[in-house]
Amino acid sequence: MTGREQIVEFRPIGVIRTPFTEVSGMPIQPAGAEGVKGRIEMLPEFVEGLRDLDGFSHITLLYHLHRAKEARLTVVPFMDTVPRGVFATRAPRRPNAIGLSTVKLVSIEGGVISIENIDVLDGTPLLDIKPYFPEFDERTDVRLGWLEDAKGRARRTRSDDRFDEEE
Amino acid sequence: MTGREQIVEFRPIGVIRTPFTEVSGMPIQPAGAEGVKGRIEMLPEFVEGLRDLDGFSHITLLYHLHRAKEARLTVVPFMDTVPRGVFATRAPRRPNAIGLSTVKLVSIEGGVISIENIDVLDGTPLLDIKPYFPEFDERTDVRLGWLEDAKGRARRTRSDDRFDEEE
Repeated sequence: MTGREQIVEFRPIGVIRTPFTEVSGMPIQPAGAEGVKGRIEMLPEFVEGLRDLDGFSHITLLYHLHRAKEARLTVVPFMDTVPRGVFATRAPRRPNAIGLSTVKLVSIEGGVISIENIDVLDGTPLLDIKPYFPEFDERTDVRLGWLEDAKGRARRTRSDDRFDEEE
Repeated sequence: MTGREQIVEFRPIGVIRTPFTEVSGMPIQPAGAEGVKGRIEMLPEFVEGLRDLDGFSHITLLYHLHRAKEARLTVVPFMDTVPRGVFATRAPRRPNAIGLSTVKLVSIEGGVISIENIDVLDGTPLLDIKPYFPEFDERTDVRLGWLEDAKGRARRTRSDDRFDEEE
């Protein structure tokens, strides 16, 4: 199998609502979006799948970076001035524009999930929710490549029009 | 926007090779796959995007759970005996069958990435690679919901035929 022939189709399970209606000035990661409140509006047919989720303090969201322009294999990340391979960055202009953010779960009422520390554009189509479980998701003894120098800077960095997600 | 009308299409950027040719007996998470070696075979047209990735010790893979059966909104997870909402679990039978694993990066030679601690089926279509960056991905003060009791058990738990990913 080469993967070349396959197309994988996904359908959003809901939409993410945030205060961010344009890319410029947005936090680039949840670490920089502390206190930013948003909500997830689930499509009614998926609400059953939220059962027991309210026991978790944090959830990992997978979503479609729906306003990213066409992919680039080499990008200059927000936190750098040097061109990097896109897979060594979190830049939105990826071959498959899937975003990943772990946010704070505040409450769930019916099909509406209140969240905090959210760093995505208003109207972002949600593809999946996974409970955040450090035993699965955390690693020790990490090396951070070019991001080593950027440690601590993610919190302060804001997006500019570099990837211009606007259509 | 309701999200209802949209279909999001992705194309694999490569394939994940592992020793696991069937679901039964597989580790259920990278934590239980310590030392398991695998590799990623990138499609040639995406190799450019790997530049600078070799500086990172860990990478997060997003992939298509291509052998998962049709979605269920309520599941009994491997680490439990009680039915749970699918979004409160990592079970593969999800509305959008996207898997998420953070693995150890061993080396990159051309379009082949050697990895360790990999917990997916051989032949799994890869959708995205992101560098693992604790500042983005780790959270403190977490509550683990139903998984609180399962802490420490993820390492030992193996899959059975519960989700029977075989066709």
